[in-house]
Order: sequence, then C-alpha cells, then structure tokens
Amino acid sequence: MTIKQESQKKLKELGEKLLNEIKSGENPYLDIPIRSLSNVNFNVEKQVLEIGDSSSKRFFFNISHIRKFVQTMEVAALAKELIEVDKHLSLRQVFYALRKTLPGTNIDVVDEQKESNDAIEDLEVIAKLTREQLHVNASKNGAAAGKIIIEDKGDRINWGKLGSGGWAIPSNTENIKFKKIDAKFIIYMEKAAMWERLNEDKVWDKMNCVIIASQGQATRGIRRLLQRLNQEHNLPIYVLTDFDPWGFYIYSVLKFGSISLAHLSDKLAIPEAKFLGLTGEDIKKYKLEKQKIKFKKVDLKRLEQLKKYDWFENKKEWQKQFKLMKEAKGKVELDALVTRGISFVSETYLPEKIKNKDWIE
Amino acid sequence: MTIKQESQKKLKELGEKLLNEIKSGENPYLDIPIRSLSNVNFNVEKQVLEIGDSSSKRFFFNISHIRKFVQTMEVAALAKELIEVDKHLSLRQVFYALRKTLPGTNIDVVDEQKESNDAIEDLEVIAKLTREQLHVNASKNGAAAGKIIIEDKGDRINWGKLGSGGWAIPSNTENIKFKKIDAKFIIYMEKAAMWERLNEDKVWDKMNCVIIASQGQATRGIRRLLQRLNQEHNLPIYVLTDFDPWGFYIYSVLKFGSISLAHLSDKLAIPEAKFLGLTGEDIKKYKLEKQKIKFKKVDLKRLEQLKKYDWFENKKEWQKQFKLMKEAKGKVELDALVTRGISFVSETYLPEKIKNKDWIE
Repeated sequence: MTIKQESQKKLKELGEKLLNEIKSGENPYLDIPIRSLSNVNFNVEKQVLEIGDSSSKRFFFNISHIRKFVQTMEVAALAKELIEVDKHLSLRQVFYALRKTLPGTNIDVVDEQKESNDAIEDLEVIAKLTREQLHVNASKNGAAAGKIIIEDKGDRINWGKLGSGGWAIPSNTENIKFKKIDAKFIIYMEKAAMWERLNEDKVWDKMNCVIIASQGQATRGIRRLLQRLNQEHNLPIYVLTDFDPWGFYIYSVLKFGSISLAHLSDKLAIPEAKFLGLTGEDIKKYKLEKQKIKFKKVDLKRLEQLKKYDWFENKKEWQKQFKLMKEAKGKVELDALVTRGISFVSETYLPEKIKNKDWIE
Repeated sequence: MTIKQESQKKLKELGEKLLNEIKSGENPYLDIPIRSLSNVNFNVEKQVLEIGDSSSKRFFFNISHIRKFVQTMEVAALAKELIEVDKHLSLRQVFYALRKTLPGTNIDVVDEQKESNDAIEDLEVIAKLTREQLHVNASKNGAAAGKIIIEDKGDRINWGKLGSGGWAIPSNTENIKFKKIDAKFIIYMEKAAMWERLNEDKVWDKMNCVIIASQGQATRGIRRLLQRLNQEHNLPIYVLTDFDPWGFYIYSVLKFGSISLAHLSDKLAIPEAKFLGLTGEDIKKYKLEKQKIKFKKVDLKRLEQLKKYDWFENKKEWQKQFKLMKEAKGKVELDALVTRGISFVSETYLPEKIKNKDWIE
C-alpha cells in the first residue's frame, strides 16, 4: 500500500465509522487520545516519549463538543481533497481554507488559526496519520550538503554538487528516495553559520559524511530526514550544539521526541542519535574557559528543568554534564572554537571527537 | 582586478595612510562617514537611499576614541587574514575571534558582539568594502528554484532540477556565476510556505521564471542575488507580499534600500523592483473582504510612518494604497487566496497580474 492509499484508507474508515453511527441512530463521536503532559510517558525500553492510553470522547450532539467536532471533520474533508489532487497547504493556508461561513448561518468554521491547528493535531491522533500524510506542510528551513544522492519529484540531486548553498530541505521529506549513499555518518548542527563554516572547509568531503543544519530546533522535515537516514541506512547521527540548556534540549528533542509531538515519536525520534556538541570537559580541553557567557536566570531555570526530565534523570553522563554546567555558570558556544583557529572545528574538534568516540548518548 | 585584489588594495591603502601618519608624527585617525538617519538621504534621481557627506574623525591618541579605533584595526587585521586564506566567518564568530586580551593588559578587545558588529560596519564605510568583501558572512536563509543554471564553487547547479527543496541560498552570493538564463523574470516572496505552494504547482516551469523566498526581510545574500539578476541580466524582479505595512516595507527595502545599510545601496537596492503583492483593489477583485485580519495599534502606527517616508511621499499610487489600507482597517495575507482554490495563486493571480502589468513601482 502506498502512503497515499494508506492515508485514504484511514480517512475512509473514520468516515464510515461516523456514517454507521448516524445510520444506527447513535450520537456520532470521535475518540481523541489526550495530548497533554499527563498522558505522555517516557518508554524506557525504546528510549522515546510516547503518548499514553487516555482518551476522551467528543460527541456531535453535545453543545460544548460540536464546534471542535465540525472543525475536525472540515479538516478531514480538506485533507481528503488535498490527497486526491496531490497538493499541499501550510498551516496558515489551511486556516484560510477553513475560514468560511457555514451555510444558512453566520458562524465561521474557524475564527483563529489556533482552532485549525488544533483540529489538524486532533485528526493526526484520531486517524493515526501524520500532518505530512494529511498534506499539511510544516515549516521549511535548513540545508544539506555531502555524500548522498537523492531522488525527489523526479529530480536526481547530488548533495555534493551544490556549491556554497547546499540543498534547501523541504517541509516534507517523506517521499525522498535515497539513491546512493557514500556518507558514513551525518552531522546535524543548530546554526546555519556553523554549517557554512564546515561547508567552506569541505568537512563532508574530507570526512565522508553529510552536514545538515536548520536554525534552532530542527523542523519536522529535518527530523524525519535524519530519522530515515538512521533507520533505513544505519547512518549514525551526530548532533552538534552549544554547551547550554537550550542546545542540550535541541539534542533531547531529536533523540527522545518532544512532549507536544509524543504521538509522532515513531516517525520523528532518533533513539540512536549521539551528542557531539561541547561538553563540560571540552571547555578545559579546548581552552575555552575565557569564552564563557554568563547564564541569565532563565538559563539556570531551564537547566533545573532539564535535569529532572525522565529521559535524563537516570543517566549518569548527562547528570554529570548538568552539574558541570551549573558550576560553569555560563554557556560556551561552538562558535567560540574560532579562538583556536578559523578551521579548528573542522580540522581538530570534529575529527578528534569522532575518532575517540567522544560523544554522549 | 579581482574582488580579492580590490579588497586587499583598499585594506592596504588604509594601513599605509595610518603608517604615514605615524611616521610623520601625526595623530593617526580614521575618517568615518556618519551612518545615522541625519546623514541618510533619498536620491530622487537614482531612487535609492544614500549615505551623505558628513563624517567624523576618530583619533588614536584620544581617550574616548581609542577603544573603537583599536577594534576597527583588529577587524581589519582579521579581514586581511580571512581574505588571504580565502575563508569566511559569521558575525558571531568574528566576535569570538576578537574576544582576546590585549598583551600586557587585562583589557579585552571586545566584550560584546555589538562592539565587533559596529567595528565591521565602520570598516565597511571607511574602506568602502562590503562585509562580504571582508569575508564576514551575514545570515543564510531562503531557497531558489527555476530556469537558471549557475556555477558556484566549481559546481554547476540547475535550479530547475532540485525537487521539492530547491537550492539553499548562501549568505554570500557575490561569486555566483550565471551560466544559462532561460527565466524571463524573478518572483520574490516573503514566505517559505508560499514558495512551496508555487514550487509544487511548478509555476517557474509554466511561466518561465525563477521563484525565490526567504522568511520575512530578505537576507543580504538574497538582496544581492536579486540585484545582480536585475542589473547583469535585465530580469524584472516581482515582489510578492501581504497587504499590510510590514509586507510593503519588505518591498521598500528591496527596492530603495534601508536606512541602516544606506551606504550599501549600490550593492543591494533594486530601483527597478516591482510590487506584485496584494493591493487594496485586489481585495475586492479577488473577493477577499471576508479574509481581513484586523490591524492592531502597532500596525496602524507603522502605516503612518510608511506614508511619510521620502520615497513614498510623492508617489500617487503608493499614497492611494496607504489610504485604502487605512480604510480597510486590516491586513489581507497572500495565503488568503487559498479560499479561491488551492492553486488559485499559481493559475489565476500571478498569470493575470503579470499579463495585465498590474504592478506598482
């Protein structure tokens, strides 16, 4: 079954369920898994965040349920159309497509984008389809370069022949075909400026790898792309971030999944991802003590939260890092490696770390 | 003379000037054009913002000047090295490279990134070299697709063969070579989601053009790329934005230049750029009245500022738009065109606008 057929089948099943309820005189309802923190668990065996079993019923004949019920149905109808014509819309565009008046009333299906966003997320968990399968695009950001040739929309694209820019990663990476993989691993980093540094030094050519960056948190498109390269082709994913709570959390989301998207961990999380960013020990090793930037209150607060997350709580190595970070009282950015030389990160830091398996999992 | 040679020559001239002053026992100084609003003028003939003739002298032997003087010299020394080894650093990386203690003192060259940023801008205006020529990268963002083949870093890149992602535009587009241009015009838009919509509809293939987007204000790399395509290859640049003060200002910066970068208008501004975004008349024409989103106070305040800018003040067509916007009391986003059909923007809006020359200049 193709992705398209699977999506159509699941939407059809949902429609038929409701139709049967109507025919047999029942009150049609949707069974919606609860997406709040109370229903999100950390699966220790799989090492990913997962959504639990709690759900709530949403009825058509219930004055406090009907608005959301109708919104979810309208999104389902739109998704059905998008899948049929093989076109995609963004979240914002879906909001406009749903911002229409119900016939015979003066009521609009949605008044704010939050309503259509919620309806899409509801449909994701009800029908067990990702937003990408519903043809609703997330944001687009980031670039890739290195030793992989892909096929996308009929084009054969060599990530090693794209000059100083690289391939712009689309919002949806579900349908990319990997045609030729010479890369031995992937380096993901949180900053486009570091990507340009590594690309200029041809790190991917010298080390036989691929470099990928977005800006801050990875987009869904990048997370899925990294996960597919790891699961389908056994490529190690190294995550390069600053030594600060925010950088560590970028790694955390990539590896374990996120609370708000816990229902999608099997499509997005990468339990095998390895942290290759700056550690507390690196600060001394690479003589970066002077390059610390003092934490603000908000950074320290975030650090305390991080320490207590289930997926970090029982990990000795991570607790050690949190302790070192608290003692350091400041962050150290990857960019600070430039004080050791313009190409120090490319010529020393990365080769040394990877050779010595100096990563944290 | 190559770009590299030109940059080296200008830096050398600056160094020699200071050396001569030292040798002849004078107080070495830098002559720095003033970059505040008071010294920025709108050149009516050229239709771009320009920096005026006011400048101030910064002396080495002056206790309130010396810190900035030394910072500028340190940036110049770093730029000289970067140019020689043909490598680039980001603004953040330059900050770290300069964050070092002066020998025999406990004084750091810079304490905050603002200082190194200012020093780079000072050097730009003193030596009449752009940040790109000094090998300091701006931010990287955006994608391109369409009927152009370029050469970059020895790679031949066909913008029409890059699947759903496109070419990721680098921060520096100075050295790109345009090898084959089949495009008849360029469409620039402010949102990546709209770019994905147009790319999925293969607008660039059907209309023989190139589509380029970033997120919000165009990066320097994109502005220079668009300017070069316009000036070197006479390609019209159409700018697609929302009907709101912020969208209009994105167009304004692309066309006339910006106040803070007025000294670079000859490298970045595109006086021939045409506005192809939503107009007041379009709201009625495309039945988008219902899709208005009410202005907040901050939007209305921005609108009042826009109206009074020199480059808009005497333009009847623009003043009419500002009037219509004030009457509309709300913005209308391009994404709202989806209420007319998923591909309405690709199949009707753009072809109709371009055929009827329905743009504003």
